[in-house]
Amino acid sequence: MAHDKAPIVKRLRTIEGHVRGVERMVDEDAYCIDILMQIDAVQKALDHVSRLVLDGHLHGCVTTAIRSDDAAERERVIGELMHVMHERRK
Amino acid sequence: MAHDKAPIVKRLRTIEGHVRGVERMVDEDAYCIDILMQIDAVQKALDHVSRLVLDGHLHGCVTTAIRSDDAAERERVIGELMHVMHERRK
Amino acid sequence: MAHDKAPIVKRLRTIEGHVRGVERMVDEDAYCIDILMQIDAVQKALDHVSRLVLDGHLHGCVTTAIRSDDAAERERVIGELMHVMHERRK
Amino acid sequence: MAHDKAPIVKRLRTIEGHVRGVERMVDEDAYCIDILMQIDAVQKALDHVSRLVLDGHLHGCVTTAIRSDDAAERERVIGELMHVMHERRK
Repeated sequence: MAHDKAPIVKRLRTIEGHVRGVERMVDEDAYCIDILMQIDAVQKALDHVSRLVLDGHLHGCVTTAIRSDDAAERERVIGELMHVMHERRK
Repeated sequence: MAHDKAPIVKRLRTIEGHVRGVERMVDEDAYCIDILMQIDAVQKALDHVSRLVLDGHLHGCVTTAIRSDDAAERERVIGELMHVMHERRK
Repeated sequence: MAHDKAPIVKRLRTIEGHVRGVERMVDEDAYCIDILMQIDAVQKALDHVSRLVLDGHLHGCVTTAIRSDDAAERERVIGELMHVMHERRK
Repeated sequence: MAHDKAPIVKRLRTIEGHVRGVERMVDEDAYCIDILMQIDAVQKALDHVSRLVLDGHLHGCVTTAIRSDDAAERERVIGELMHVMHERRK
């Protein structure tokens, strides 16, 4: 990855704690709407992590592959990118 | 909530472990695309939990409120539902 | 539907014109990113229409069904709602 | 765009007709759930068009920019890509 991984790991650790908080809310019979809003917040935090990883990928592997003279490798990296963006949030 | 909370808590615990697995992947420099696909799997698992909570909410609070004679309460519950569905993963 | 349909039809007509505009952009070789941003604007406009229709549905059919004494009909309406919200933009 | 635009224009024309069909459904008081499902089908068709445009963009402009020696241009193209993917479906 082109980017520093420490802030990504840190964000994921926070998300882990957030999920634990949602477990507690369910366990303590919190109001459904509040639970749904917390799950939504977790999903937005995960979207943010995805963006960081994708940005690192574009600056790293994708840039290297596209700048190479290996046409098949260029095609592979673009195909993979299309796949992951298509799958996302489906 | 109209539904049993045990399976929901169990799913959230699994998701927590899944997030921990993604942390490990980032830490061990796994391939970006594999990380993105695991984050996507976590998002889908969270979508599933949201659906369970929403289903319980519709069968519980929403049904009770709509069957009541309190028009303001009916309006409140529908407004809240619209809000949560609109906000979702935005 | 519980709501007035005229504004919904009007919004859809605007969306139709917007789609025609995107066709023109593609035909005139507009920049891909600009095309993607216009498609995204159309998607958001469609989301808005969905919300209006859903709001009408909750105030109309769903409220009537849930207030009825027909438990099977109540179940049917909630199941349909869950289905449509789950399917949405998947 | 790296790709042929004819099939994209054709798809958009079909989508335009589909939107017109939804207008008719609303006008003729079709069942809300059926309307919502048709709007959802239109959105999936637009997603498909977005993918085609994005794929052309990656093979065309993005590949050219990344293979160039202009670091600022490379950065610009990646930033634009991140922006459009982040905005999408928000």
